[in-house]
Amino acid sequence: MAPTSEALTAERILEATEEVLRRHGPAKATVVDVARALGVSHGSVYRHFRTKAALREAVTKRWLDRTSEALAGIAAEAARGPEGRLRAWLLALFDAKRHKAGDDPELFATYTTLAAENSDAVDEHLADLTGQLAGIVRAGVESGDFSSADPVTTARAVFQATARFHDPGYHREWELPGVQDEFEAVVDLLTRGLRSA
Amino acid sequence: MAPTSEALTAERILEATEEVLRRHGPAKATVVDVARALGVSHGSVYRHFRTKAALREAVTKRWLDRTSEALAGIAAEAARGPEGRLRAWLLALFDAKRHKAGDDPELFATYTTLAAENSDAVDEHLADLTGQLAGIVRAGVESGDFSSADPVTTARAVFQATARFHDPGYHREWELPGVQDEFEAVVDLLTRGLRSA
Repeated sequence: MAPTSEALTAERILEATEEVLRRHGPAKATVVDVARALGVSHGSVYRHFRTKAALREAVTKRWLDRTSEALAGIAAEAARGPEGRLRAWLLALFDAKRHKAGDDPELFATYTTLAAENSDAVDEHLADLTGQLAGIVRAGVESGDFSSADPVTTARAVFQATARFHDPGYHREWELPGVQDEFEAVVDLLTRGLRSA
Repeated sequence: MAPTSEALTAERILEATEEVLRRHGPAKATVVDVARALGVSHGSVYRHFRTKAALREAVTKRWLDRTSEALAGIAAEAARGPEGRLRAWLLALFDAKRHKAGDDPELFATYTTLAAENSDAVDEHLADLTGQLAGIVRAGVESGDFSSADPVTTARAVFQATARFHDPGYHREWELPGVQDEFEAVVDLLTRGLRSA
């Protein structure tokens, strides 16, 4: 049998960290708790993540990446036209955030705290998402569906203009009646703005 | 000479309340502090505002109304075309919020706290602002500059899509370089979306 330390992957540590965060909250969760949950020494955890801060950053990144990986698939779906892809992408982003916030509010609050202390991971995540959007806008310009002098600027404008439907600061609004209609009104207006004259 | 109580208008009380809030912060400011600042009894203050909560709501409303009154003038400027009015209105809103946040950060923080506890006043304020926007959209539809099946829905979409440039939750972003370009990119996209085909 392999010794425990060999089976101890970064992914297993991150899974256990999420569970510990869920149970203890971000203020109280420690590396010792994570090691205990895995039945290993805290030294073994530190071999993968050199500091508690590095572990917290990695688990934040993993949580954020879950959303961007799902969206990357939609951004690359060449079978759909650019406008269809844009609408599907924005809806998938809204849905992903809504589910994270609504399905497990405590874990969502935990990750909101972690995101606030890991602004580099958040910045990377936002750059990743707006990069995906820029790809859709660029494809639309190439196909003649969209008009944009600068797809990166336009993508950032679309992302910022839909903030109400993905920025965690608005999560309380996502449960209100009418929010789906509001989302569609904003997306309609933006796609009209993107269409070439 | 008129007795002090006759000269004691609601407006004078609200001015003094703002000053007391600025000095003591929202947690510590009391009606007794306001009365003392005015050199009157706290009973005289209660004759105008029946409770401390009513006084706090009124001062919040006054702060919010300062923005909406300035904007109402722009919304009504018939000399400018609808698109010009829309752009000027959105810019004036952004500028008003930026100034409130940047010129006196402590007072801004105080009013952010007050706004959170006076959601009715905030809702009225938002309804007032989106009503002004709906008027601009409606005028644009009538002149043939804009196309919109439902100006109220469209106005709400424009307001929500520009949240990054007026929602106090984003005030830290308003100081960043590039924010003016970001604002313009969003407004350009929205006005393109509004123009009739």
